[in-house]
Parts: sequence; structure tokens; C-alpha cells
Amino acid sequence: MILNKTIITVSREFGSGGRTIAKTLAEKLGFAYYDKALVKQVALETGFAPAFVEERGEDSPEKSPLSYLFDSCGASGVMGGMNASDYLWTMQREVILSFADSGSCVIVGRCADFILKDRDDCFNVYIHADLSFRMERIVRLYGESEQSPKRRVLEKDAKRRANYEHFTGQKWGLAQNYHLTMNSAAIGIERCVSVIFGLV
Amino acid sequence: MILNKTIITVSREFGSGGRTIAKTLAEKLGFAYYDKALVKQVALETGFAPAFVEERGEDSPEKSPLSYLFDSCGASGVMGGMNASDYLWTMQREVILSFADSGSCVIVGRCADFILKDRDDCFNVYIHADLSFRMERIVRLYGESEQSPKRRVLEKDAKRRANYEHFTGQKWGLAQNYHLTMNSAAIGIERCVSVIFGLV
Repeated sequence: MILNKTIITVSREFGSGGRTIAKTLAEKLGFAYYDKALVKQVALETGFAPAFVEERGEDSPEKSPLSYLFDSCGASGVMGGMNASDYLWTMQREVILSFADSGSCVIVGRCADFILKDRDDCFNVYIHADLSFRMERIVRLYGESEQSPKRRVLEKDAKRRANYEHFTGQKWGLAQNYHLTMNSAAIGIERCVSVIFGLV
Repeated sequence: MILNKTIITVSREFGSGGRTIAKTLAEKLGFAYYDKALVKQVALETGFAPAFVEERGEDSPEKSPLSYLFDSCGASGVMGGMNASDYLWTMQREVILSFADSGSCVIVGRCADFILKDRDDCFNVYIHADLSFRMERIVRLYGESEQSPKRRVLEKDAKRRANYEHFTGQKWGLAQNYHLTMNSAAIGIERCVSVIFGLV
């Protein structure tokens, strides 16, 4: 390997193809790939229902009324007084740390870049793209919904941004937080994979 | 060319090697390279002394007392009431637009990414690096000075940031403003060149 990095984290704007890039890259490299599988493991360890964790895992900690519900029962329970968001964060952090310890892998989202920042074998990537590219792509991949594609993209981004900034204290999408950032609309999804593959 | 981009803009943190990357890339591609030459042309067209433009070209518009000096004589003169910073910006903008029109080139700094944002043949790159890498590098390249390396790096960055944000209204170093950003300390200066070369 050129850079001798065995853990690749991929953060991404919604609809940019970051997940596809990560998955293809993991296949090409023969690395483990963690995305929903990660979420499921978190769910099993915390006892939360998988669908709930999947939905909340990258959501804004401020926005869900569910967190107050969990708060009220968490103080004396397994969550030790943390609200649901903080508890979920702690659990996800543990799982990500253990995945990183267990071997070469590609991890999508979940603030993994920040969680693993003290390791020197991590390569952190951020994928973004023009709004029009992402709007077209989510409709093609996930179909139409009641909300406009623009609103779906912007709301999902806002949730991921709020989550990232709340838990890391860093700005989402700032070049300095990543080793490599790419505009997948301009560069192309396949070429993004090639660039990362060529480097690690 | 893979992406069919004939104009490459390189923005960079001070000491990150962005200028070296741009210059090497221009040589490899056989593209024109504009950095201090650009500044000189601006100087000739505006009548400012080259040394002054070179020093002020990426400086914060707020920080230099010289701008007030120029203000007072500019209102009735060639600068048509603009202060020196705004006048310099306008002149540099014109020069960059004309360079872009005249053929394949690599342009370093000077907000060229923003100035050329309406062209679809531009590829915008941002190079950054860890502080320790940059401190070591500027001392090796430019020698010691009375100021500490850390202060030199941070002050130069602050000036470039203020200049960029003042004239573009965009955040300096935000991934979304560039097609590609790279950490040259992690990736290596030569590999940064190879990645861009491979793409364009």
C-alpha cells in the first residue's frame, strides 16, 4: 500500500454517492465494510430497536422528541442518566473503536473520522456534490416521495451536520478535517473510487 | 484528458506545498503557470509597485493602513473611489479572467476558484496540511525569521482567509468550494501532483 492506511472513513453529503464509493472501495481492497451492519451491532449492544438506531444514528441530537422520552427512563436505567442521543453516540463510538482494532475496514459516516482521530492508520475522506446531481440521484435510487427532492437532500444534510458538529465540535465539510475531499458530480463516482484506491 | 478541464486553480494554506504542487503540475501538463507573474501583470496594469501588490494581493483588506492612504488619493484618481484593496481585487479579477480565456493554465491563489466559477472547464483544488508539517517546511524553504514559525504560518493563513472571505463571501477551506482538497502532509506533495494529473 502506498500510504499504508488500513482504515478508511467516508463522510458524505446525502445523495453524493459516498456510500457507493465506500462499498465499491471496500470490495476492491478486500476490506470489511461497515454501514448498516455497524448500526445493527450498535442496536444489539444497546438494546434499541435497529430501525430506531438506523433512523437516529446520524440525526440531530436536538431535533427528536424521542430523546426526551428516553431521558425520562434513562436516568435510573442502562443509560446512566445520559439522554438517548448521547447514549447512542457512546455506544457507536465503542463499536467503531472495536471495528478499527479488528482489522482493515471502510467505515461510512457516524463521525468515524473524529472518533478514530488518534490513530495514524486512518485515511479520512469526505464526498460532496452539487445539489442538482444529488437531487437527481436520490430520485433515481430511492424513488419519489411526498417531499421534494431538494427538501429531502437539504434536511438530511442539516441533520448530519447538526449531529457531526454537536458530537465533534468540528465543522462538517471543512477540508482540514479530512485527508481528501472530492466533488463526486465533477469527478465521477468511479473515478473517486480510483483515486482513493490508488492512494491507499 | 479524463475530465477535460484546462484550467486548474490551486488554493492553499501557507507552507502546505500548494504552490510547489501547482508549479510541478503545470510543468507535467505543459500548462501555463500563473503566480507571481500574475501579480506582476496586475502591478503593471494598475501602476502599483510589484512588491506592494505581491505583498498585498492576498492580504486582509481590513488590516493594512496603506489602504487608507490609497483611499484618500483614490477618490478622484484612477481608482474611481474604490479603496486600494477593492481596486486591486478588480484588477486581479480582470487579469485572471483574461488568463483563463487565453488557454490551458494553472493559477495559484488570488481567489481564482471564485473568479472563474462560471466556467465549466475549471478544476478547483485546495491544499492544506498539519501545522507541524507546515512549520517545518517554511523554515526549511524560507529560513528562520524573527517571528516563530507557528506565528508566521497562522498569520499568513489568517490574512488569506480574511481576503478570501471578504471578496468571495465564501468560507475559506470549505470542501464544497473545491472539486478536490488534499492534506499534503498525509498524502505527500508528489502524490498530490499525481492525483490531480491523473484526473485532468
